[in-house]
This record gives sequence, C-alpha cells and structure tokens, in this order.
Amino acid sequence: MEEILRQQIEKIVPLTDDEFRLVLSHFSVGNYKKHQYIVQQENPVPYVHFVVKGLLKSFYIDKSGKSHILQFAMEDWWITDNQGFYKEENATLNIDCLEDAQTYYITLENRDQLCVALLKMEFFFLQKMTAGNIALQNRILSLMSKNSEERYIQFIQLYPDLIHRIPKTLIASYLGISRETLSRLSH
Amino acid sequence: MEEILRQQIEKIVPLTDDEFRLVLSHFSVGNYKKHQYIVQQENPVPYVHFVVKGLLKSFYIDKSGKSHILQFAMEDWWITDNQGFYKEENATLNIDCLEDAQTYYITLENRDQLCVALLKMEFFFLQKMTAGNIALQNRILSLMSKNSEERYIQFIQLYPDLIHRIPKTLIASYLGISRETLSRLSH
Repeated sequence: MEEILRQQIEKIVPLTDDEFRLVLSHFSVGNYKKHQYIVQQENPVPYVHFVVKGLLKSFYIDKSGKSHILQFAMEDWWITDNQGFYKEENATLNIDCLEDAQTYYITLENRDQLCVALLKMEFFFLQKMTAGNIALQNRILSLMSKNSEERYIQFIQLYPDLIHRIPKTLIASYLGISRETLSRLSH
Repeated sequence: MEEILRQQIEKIVPLTDDEFRLVLSHFSVGNYKKHQYIVQQENPVPYVHFVVKGLLKSFYIDKSGKSHILQFAMEDWWITDNQGFYKEENATLNIDCLEDAQTYYITLENRDQLCVALLKMEFFFLQKMTAGNIALQNRILSLMSKNSEERYIQFIQLYPDLIHRIPKTLIASYLGISRETLSRLSH
C-alpha cells in the first residue's frame, strides 16, 4: 500500500528511499469500515487522508436535512474538509465510507514539519492544491452552465471507474439532479 | 501601490526590504481600461494578476451564449483562469475590467523561480491556494444547498464592499439567479 503513496508523490517530485521513509514517518494508517464516518459535521478535522483502498464521500447536510455530495474519493485521491482542516475549525462537512477503506492520514502540524524537513514536499502539496482548485472551479462552471444530461455525461467521462461503484442515488446527489432524472439519463 | 502587494504577502510571511525588492522584480505592472479584457476564452493565459486598483470579473460563456460569472476581484485579490494558467492551456474563461484597473502580474515561470530564490514565497502561494480552495468549496455548497435569498444574503455578508460597485445584473449572474429575483430580494 505504501507504493500507492510513493507513486502519487513521484508523479510530481522524485524521492530517494530515505526521503520516502521520512515522508512515511509523518503519516499514520487508518482502517475504516463501510458506513464509518471519518469526519463529522461540527467536530474537529485533525487529518487529511490519502486513500489507498476503498471509496469515501464528503457531504453537507443543509438545515432542512437534505444531503449534498461535494466529493467522492477512491484509491489515489486525497480527501478532508478543507475549511475545517486548514483553518483548524469544526467541520461543515461529513465524510463517510461507501466501502471498507484504508488511508494514509497526516495532521496539519506533521504536514508543515514534513515540508520544512523535505522542501520538495511543499512543492508537491502546492501542485496538489492547485489541481484541486482547478477541479473545484470546473465543478462550479458545470453546476452553473450545464444541464442535467451534460453534467451526467461529463461525470462519466471524468470518472469512468466510479460509475459502477456508486449507487445512482448518490451520483444524482453529487450532480444536483433528481434520482428520476438520472434514471432516465442512464438508460 | 507596491505596499498593497507587500502587505498581502506579509499577512502570511514577513519580508525584509531586500526580499521584497526580489519579489517585486519578478512581477510586472499592468494598467487596464474599463471593459478591457485581460484573459480571453481560447487564448493563452500567461499571467496571474494581483489587483492593486479597480475591479475585474472572470466569466464563462456557454455554448448557448449565456454568461456565468465565476469570480469578482478587487484590490488585494488575485485573479486568473486557474486551469489555463497552471496547466498552460488555452483559457476556458474570460476576464475583463468593470473599472479601470492596475495589477501586479507574474508568469508561471517567474513564480516558480521566485519560489526557488525565496523559499518562503512557496509557503505564501500554498496558503493562498488553500484559501482559494476553501472559498471555491463553499461556493459549491452554496450553489447546491442555498436558495436565491440565502445566496444573496451570504454574498452581502461576505463582500459588503462589492455590493455597491457591481451592477445588479452581474451579481445575479454570479449568484445564478434571475435579475428579477435579485431585484425583489434587494428592495
């Protein structure tokens, strides 16, 4: 499982074996069961998680009790409540497991220490944050400018591996469309 | 005008006079007229801009010709087409000036060189990117979970200085609501 993390980092910066051991020493390993929460609304967000096995989702429950999915995360993806984690505030989001999952997780303090100990990791995190920014920007443009069908087609194109692992109800919630509309589109 | 850039950076990392001169030597100054475009859809995006005077907006024109506003940027804000700039692709967005504007702008090459020459600038850019990420995440949750009135109230609370500088039609486009709905809400 370590290799997935190493490959993820080495897509951006090369690492010697010693450097990778240093990186790894700043992370912990977590094992979670399907349906388990790893972040809960109104609670602290001590970690950012790198997924090595399984599938998770982050979602917001509005004041009427309706759930809105912000993100899915499968193998090789990062997930946390960004506002809670980076601003050290309580979570506005929930994150739970759609499948049994394993993650490498790191605290903000350890991430900052790692960046000081190994400067190229700061460049790595900057590149990942930039990629996250671009994805979020595209998500906004999609929500604002695309209709249900266009959003569904875009989802299939962007995430062909996800479509068979996620119940349709959750894909509909992610796309901001009704379950009925999604059923019509996916037949 | 230099002082606005210095203060912006020093909110995150302190700088000596020599260090600030080094920072400044990597930027250029641009002056733009109201209605002028600084980024145009389908064209390269060579710069990220830090606004020291004036007001700009980034927007996407969908295939039916409808315009959707992604972001406003006034003094002390950064603006570019993130995908175009960081991935060195052609722009999906347009950016134009709502008022005469002045910016400090930097190329990706100069930004990277600056980070190598002055390591703390990489930490600065990481912090700014993180803040941008949080803002975009909140924008998505707002679009997905809030109704027109809640979005308008949130906009006023987040950006009290903007509300009097921007035509109502553009605020409606940013919020994804009709001009008529906004008129009703703002009276």
